[in-house]
Amino acid sequence: WLRWPIHYRITIFVLLIILVFGELISLVEPKEFPTIFDGIWWAVVTVSTVGFGDYVPKTYLGKGIAMIMILAGASFVTAYFATISAAAIKRQNSYAEGAV
Amino acid sequence: WLRWPIHYRITIFVLLIILVFGELISLVEPKEFPTIFDGIWWAVVTVSTVGFGDYVPKTYLGKGIAMIMILAGASFVTAYFATISAAAIKRQNSYAEGAV
Amino acid sequence: WLRWPIHYRITIFVLLIILVFGELISLVEPKEFPTIFDGIWWAVVTVSTVGFGDYVPKTYLGKGIAMIMILAGASFVTAYFATISAAAIKRQNSYAEGAV
Amino acid sequence: WLRWPIHYRITIFVLLIILVFGELISLVEPKEFPTIFDGIWWAVVTVSTVGFGDYVPKTYLGKGIAMIMILAGASFVTAYFATISAAAIKRQNSYAEGAV
Ligand SMILES: [K+]
Ligand SMILES: [K+]
Repeated sequence: WLRWPIHYRITIFVLLIILVFGELISLVEPKEFPTIFDGIWWAVVTVSTVGFGDYVPKTYLGKGIAMIMILAGASFVTAYFATISAAAIKRQNSYAEGAV
Repeated sequence: WLRWPIHYRITIFVLLIILVFGELISLVEPKEFPTIFDGIWWAVVTVSTVGFGDYVPKTYLGKGIAMIMILAGASFVTAYFATISAAAIKRQNSYAEGAV
Repeated sequence: WLRWPIHYRITIFVLLIILVFGELISLVEPKEFPTIFDGIWWAVVTVSTVGFGDYVPKTYLGKGIAMIMILAGASFVTAYFATISAAAIKRQNSYAEGAV
Repeated sequence: WLRWPIHYRITIFVLLIILVFGELISLVEPKEFPTIFDGIWWAVVTVSTVGFGDYVPKTYLGKGIAMIMILAGASFVTAYFATISAAAIKRQNSYAEGAV
């Protein structure tokens, strides 16, 4: 899959981070994150650096997992945001130039 | 409108995202977002990744809409922030060089 | 001052945004922001997109001012973050190459 | 250490900011940040601009330290996010081209 366009690979990677860490946090802190959906919602809100604060890990283990997700995962979300918008702008410019 | 400068198009696109998702969330969760103004305020705060947490969707549908807005919309706001500041810097440099 | 390096000008511009909007919000919403220091603290937290949610405007006018600050100001803070880190990296590389 | 790759140096710098400011805030506001772990958790959440709002400094000194960390430190975290993701993308492309 290394031949796929870079924004496809980053999108899949970002979705994987959200699913893995969302499920992980709901396993580690079932009291704060009762369902996997709660975990995924928290992972999207955190890794995008929105951070509403409606769900927050309370234990050392939960906070440790969250710190790893923020420091490792947020860089891919930054890359995701940058490549998605770059791809959209490029496609628009291609239309404008009549190349598509 | 594809011939317009890129930062005009992105500005209009960002304002459209804010208006559409702001109205949508106030329709879907009228209890948490009583007026459309509340929805627009929440959309600006969320899509810019500020995320105060004063307004947060509570239902599955509301959270689903919010996740789509964050993952799809925040990339355009990132592009918006980057192009607006690039345009401002360019204009200042043009003044400095006496080109304008 | 257009001959000054770009990261000096952006730093001054960002500090101006923080001071002006910090004072403005404490004038418009004295109940939520009792002192100018509270307003400046809120402006730094908001314009950097940290958004703790400890101080949040409650009135239409306060939220309107905040939305303008976010949509107009955050782009300059993005530029500020980018140029400050670029300048720091450049200086380190210059040292490494023995050019300074 | 100026000969090390740029993303190594930035990673170390970001970890230093987190450790120094995390310990500093727990010394200055022991009531809000009872342990150094609480301080480090808050520093990671703040400097990444997630900003949950579960821990917030309450005193003038604590808020002053936080503002310095946000305005000075967040630019390095932005650079960290950008270089980490750029390094990851480059390595993937090298694999794809069969160069590694
Ligand atoms: K935030
Ligand atoms: K936040």
